[in-house]
Amino acid sequence: MRISASQDTLHHALQNVMKAVSPHCLVPILSGIKLTAHAGGLSLSSSNTHMMIQYELSLEDGKLEILSTGSIVVPAAYLSEIVRKSPSEQVTLEVTEHLILTIRAGSSVYRLCGMDPLDFPGMPEANPSLRFAIPSPLLHKVIKQVVFAVSASEHRPVLTGVSCQLDKMGRFRFLATDGIRFASRTTELSVNARAGFTPITIPGKNLNELAKLLLGEQGTTEVALGESWAIFKTGNVMVYSALIEGTYPSVENFIPASPTTEVLVHAEDLIQAIERVTLLADKSHLLRFHTTGKRITLTARTAEIGDVSEELIMEHRTGADIDISFNGKYMRDILRSADSPRTTLKFTGRLSPIHIEPYNDAQTAYILTPIRTQ
Amino acid sequence: MRISASQDTLHHALQNVMKAVSPHCLVPILSGIKLTAHAGGLSLSSSNTHMMIQYELSLEDGKLEILSTGSIVVPAAYLSEIVRKSPSEQVTLEVTEHLILTIRAGSSVYRLCGMDPLDFPGMPEANPSLRFAIPSPLLHKVIKQVVFAVSASEHRPVLTGVSCQLDKMGRFRFLATDGIRFASRTTELSVNARAGFTPITIPGKNLNELAKLLLGEQGTTEVALGESWAIFKTGNVMVYSALIEGTYPSVENFIPASPTTEVLVHAEDLIQAIERVTLLADKSHLLRFHTTGKRITLTARTAEIGDVSEELIMEHRTGADIDISFNGKYMRDILRSADSPRTTLKFTGRLSPIHIEPYNDAQTAYILTPIRTQ
Repeated sequence: MRISASQDTLHHALQNVMKAVSPHCLVPILSGIKLTAHAGGLSLSSSNTHMMIQYELSLEDGKLEILSTGSIVVPAAYLSEIVRKSPSEQVTLEVTEHLILTIRAGSSVYRLCGMDPLDFPGMPEANPSLRFAIPSPLLHKVIKQVVFAVSASEHRPVLTGVSCQLDKMGRFRFLATDGIRFASRTTELSVNARAGFTPITIPGKNLNELAKLLLGEQGTTEVALGESWAIFKTGNVMVYSALIEGTYPSVENFIPASPTTEVLVHAEDLIQAIERVTLLADKSHLLRFHTTGKRITLTARTAEIGDVSEELIMEHRTGADIDISFNGKYMRDILRSADSPRTTLKFTGRLSPIHIEPYNDAQTAYILTPIRTQ
Repeated sequence: MRISASQDTLHHALQNVMKAVSPHCLVPILSGIKLTAHAGGLSLSSSNTHMMIQYELSLEDGKLEILSTGSIVVPAAYLSEIVRKSPSEQVTLEVTEHLILTIRAGSSVYRLCGMDPLDFPGMPEANPSLRFAIPSPLLHKVIKQVVFAVSASEHRPVLTGVSCQLDKMGRFRFLATDGIRFASRTTELSVNARAGFTPITIPGKNLNELAKLLLGEQGTTEVALGESWAIFKTGNVMVYSALIEGTYPSVENFIPASPTTEVLVHAEDLIQAIERVTLLADKSHLLRFHTTGKRITLTARTAEIGDVSEELIMEHRTGADIDISFNGKYMRDILRSADSPRTTLKFTGRLSPIHIEPYNDAQTAYILTPIRTQ
């Protein structure tokens, strides 16, 4: 193979595929990027044990020239640093000897030892049971709204993922929970195969990487959900995510039916107040929240260090006063992810889950389990 | 004590004194900041086992009000975060109970458990044998030019510091070496007690912190060098650095007397080339440098990964061609610290130390020991 490409185009492509490279993988070839020069352009592929990324650089925008076709796998970290530090606007990549890639950029000549492209894992077939298209900014927002709530512990692997389900109304729904907090986002999507779709669970860390790739994208993402893989195609890039096996817990009765207190707050005011008060919270980020009329008082303390109290005024309240304790950091994360200027907190007594809902947005719901205190 | 101060003034003062706080010190009081409200203003002090910082907030600029005098020590990290996150332009600090500091900012009320200020170490007496003033930008530059060359190993503690000496001409000189590389900077200073001054060694890490405090300062720094302490006063802040005991090695014969080859280069070109070539250098950053007429060729290789060669043109050369190997990262650090557009490399054979000198600047000198290769 022999190709010539502009440095910025190649650098951008490499930045995208680097997200699926395993730098310290026991399988050496997975520390590499597969380059395939074909008549239509250059494919760059990376793979780890749970995610693959393929980036297509096409000839169309004139920033790439294919001088001869072929394929090689080269160490990802070295290739990406070499291109990043290239002094030249134009970089040529050429397989000059068996499994040797020669890179020329300015007055630098690098020769990288490559690996056999036949040993690189192939991209999986999706056999999708469901295909749909979603605006990329919406997919980005949906991921950001739920993915923070996945479990960080591998104790129950299925909870490290986001569950994708169809609800009774046939609408697509994304769920995440770590047992303490729960996030749910329902979307209106034109789904062409809603019958027979079994819920799937996508690893949270893959969705986080996908969200980074989607940031700032304005187009549409094509999604194909199969039995073992979910595939996302947006612009030049395709992301293949393995799915997590196992049955996701039922969440039908998570949301308390009849709250006894509802409090409407300016989300940013409450976020800022929580951040100040959790400065003096203990390791479990325990924060006490109690109301007196329209006044909210937040308090926290750390033994031997000190305590803090802060007051803010809510916008509206119905029901009785409430006195409840919860993890302040978790509540702040929920309010941030809700991404709404005003938010309603619904309480059903001091020991029942708190239901947090962006104002005028019944598509998004969060639950936070309170902390039982003396 | 009871004081009221603007948030930005207090935040800036705390940022300065935080540099000498030991967050995980076995002596609890050293994790604190001592606040002393006196008739003229507020003193903030911090101390670790090798450095102390004192910051004076004066009443003069109207951003501070002393309502009653007194003193307390409070946990530095908490106080600094509380002030940083304060929503209010005005912050009040008040000792409300025995060893309790109440901080009011906006609608937040914090109560921090303090410690007895009598237990806090006092600032040392300098008993200086030498006092002088130096423009702060010059002191900043001098530190940056030499401090990178101190040893990172505690094996010979004296080499972790920068030696301050008077040379034969009575000029002040700063030296640092880790045995492989050596940096020397001589300054013209109006020194009022040059007779009887014994060289001292200031810890490199303290000078790094001092350099951060000096960054952007335009005034003058007053320096007092004593037997056990060096004191630097610039603007509102005083830095007390403990000295390292022990005799600094003699460096008189470090610089080879009669170079056989001299090469004049554009420093930035060589820095960039070294950075690209060391991408494929081994763990010792081994880089080969050889000349053919006015052409410099840099090469490096890592077993099983690949190799690289790069060429650049020097500006001027005298003497024979040279073929030598050295630590590329060390050479880059030297060229960066020299902070000069053009630099002369002087060689005395492939096994002798390389002498690096900024063009037209005999006050600054660097030595790098080459690596012996087959």
